[in-house]
Amino acid sequence: MREYYVHKHPITLETGITLPEVTIAYNTFGKLSPKRDNVVWVMHALTADSDVSDWWPHTVEQGRFLDPDKWFVVCANVIGSCYGSTGPTSIDPNTGTPYYNNFPDVTVRDMVMCHSLLAQHLGIKQINTIVGSSLGGFQAIEWLVSEPEIAQRAVLIATDYRCRPWLAAINKAMYMAIEADNSFGEARADAGAKGLAAARVIGLLSYRGQAAYDSTQDDKDKNHSPFERRVHSYQAYQGKKLCDRFDAYSYIKMCKSTDSHDVSRGRGSGEETLSRVTAKCMVVAISSDILFPPSYHRELASMLPSAEYHEIESDYAHDGFLIEYEKLDNLIRDFYSRTQHLNDKMSII
Amino acid sequence: MREYYVHKHPITLETGITLPEVTIAYNTFGKLSPKRDNVVWVMHALTADSDVSDWWPHTVEQGRFLDPDKWFVVCANVIGSCYGSTGPTSIDPNTGTPYYNNFPDVTVRDMVMCHSLLAQHLGIKQINTIVGSSLGGFQAIEWLVSEPEIAQRAVLIATDYRCRPWLAAINKAMYMAIEADNSFGEARADAGAKGLAAARVIGLLSYRGQAAYDSTQDDKDKNHSPFERRVHSYQAYQGKKLCDRFDAYSYIKMCKSTDSHDVSRGRGSGEETLSRVTAKCMVVAISSDILFPPSYHRELASMLPSAEYHEIESDYAHDGFLIEYEKLDNLIRDFYSRTQHLNDKMSII
Repeated sequence: MREYYVHKHPITLETGITLPEVTIAYNTFGKLSPKRDNVVWVMHALTADSDVSDWWPHTVEQGRFLDPDKWFVVCANVIGSCYGSTGPTSIDPNTGTPYYNNFPDVTVRDMVMCHSLLAQHLGIKQINTIVGSSLGGFQAIEWLVSEPEIAQRAVLIATDYRCRPWLAAINKAMYMAIEADNSFGEARADAGAKGLAAARVIGLLSYRGQAAYDSTQDDKDKNHSPFERRVHSYQAYQGKKLCDRFDAYSYIKMCKSTDSHDVSRGRGSGEETLSRVTAKCMVVAISSDILFPPSYHRELASMLPSAEYHEIESDYAHDGFLIEYEKLDNLIRDFYSRTQHLNDKMSII
Repeated sequence: MREYYVHKHPITLETGITLPEVTIAYNTFGKLSPKRDNVVWVMHALTADSDVSDWWPHTVEQGRFLDPDKWFVVCANVIGSCYGSTGPTSIDPNTGTPYYNNFPDVTVRDMVMCHSLLAQHLGIKQINTIVGSSLGGFQAIEWLVSEPEIAQRAVLIATDYRCRPWLAAINKAMYMAIEADNSFGEARADAGAKGLAAARVIGLLSYRGQAAYDSTQDDKDKNHSPFERRVHSYQAYQGKKLCDRFDAYSYIKMCKSTDSHDVSRGRGSGEETLSRVTAKCMVVAISSDILFPPSYHRELASMLPSAEYHEIESDYAHDGFLIEYEKLDNLIRDFYSRTQHLNDKMSII
């Protein structure tokens, strides 16, 4: 069940812009142990919400790495999104109308600041394990750097410590598609919907890649018109599907937050910055991921003070982090077992 | 110098639609030998024109594989494009105004039909070597299948015998971006320009890939705003650059022609269809090409009756076919030498 924490104080974003108050939507699963040592904090990716049991199948289940009988699982919707936390579709207290295109840009650091506020609200001083994939991994790494004592362990999947030109280039293609839709900018939640549908499909190309498209979307009917392709309908459907649950303003804020991601900004070199991390990290790449290829993860693992690198063999590319839950579950539970001593140590603190 | 062949007879496209006449713009380099056995026909890719010496650097040069002292090089602009051949910006003889969005869809087979008309016009009955990359390769393979006696040899680079779901999925993302621009459909050449810019950038992502973007577009200035990325300017510039030389109507026709590409349509299986090819083929993949990965080329080479497979090691992905001209030149001239007997045989015909 989604809950809300309303932080009734102004928060100052990294850009210096102030929000008069901020609402953070979150879900929890399981119970906080008396020693408060069983928190697993999951950070969500671009268009997900705080209900990790919904978007990450077979994780919040008995015996799985988010077993609610064992762990107190927390997942919060990031600010700038549209699933309950303050974002472009929220009411601007200064005007009484939704922010829409006037919502300020938010960085990954701003998202993490809100996670930290929620943790304080929930009385959580230390997290057993932070788990983040993609933009979720960005937040996880940022939190480990900005507040090194926050977590004992972290699982960083299909992610990176900074947004490289490749992701920023894909982002720009999406902005250009959304801005080509001249309804973008109008004060309504479905402004820019055609552009958003195109942007979603650009994103999907990078999440799925060649092997996944080719193996699942081949034309079965060979009698189609030369110009009609089965995958065209699929793309149109996927674009529309996102428009039914997301808006272009929030989508652009989410993408811009990824542009902003560089844990080393203002903190020295990447190596210096990542050397602050004290958590034991497991870095997991998907072999066919073209958005965050394995090479990024090997670099990340080598720069973290204490990290192990794993690669999941999969044809599902970036989407593999959602689809390969079985392989991930085995990896993460094994990581839990092998690093149990950290957990024991934590409970003494 | 660009020349024009005006075919003053109706042509019927694969869809059954008739064009009252068709203009084919072409360039030639070198001289046709008395035996007419020195023709190298180059087919261009998506947004190129008939001046191969311009878009394919260091090829139409002494000692190179398109040496004009040795070869009679022909390159024709495909129909549906905007560089002199009949296309959306041409005047519709029935209305006296440009076709724009009313220009009919054209298939790769229609393009090849026009190449064949031009060859007849030029008195060319047999081609020494057909060279095609990307959409140019589509045309080359189609010509080898539809008119097997046309060529003795062919060089097929970064291409395929059919448009797989992956390319069609990228195409659809581009259509959605162009159609998100509500000026698309208006009767002017710059209609849909914002959408076209976005589409171009979507295409570029697939031509360049991760390694090329990451290695050339990293932010040098670390003091930029968190949301400003160097690659954003690059993408915007590339989008605008295409809009300065191309129009959205022609662009969509070019992409739709790629959707249509399947040499086996109406001709049996892929194997059966490709078994018609009599030319000796060299199939060349670029190792990092994510648009037409090496796996496609190995399949193509294995299905052609007489083909050799080569892979160019390069980080430039699909664009490697333009950038790796040195490696390509070595490969192709070596292919010329090793298959000289075909050329000798040809001159007897």
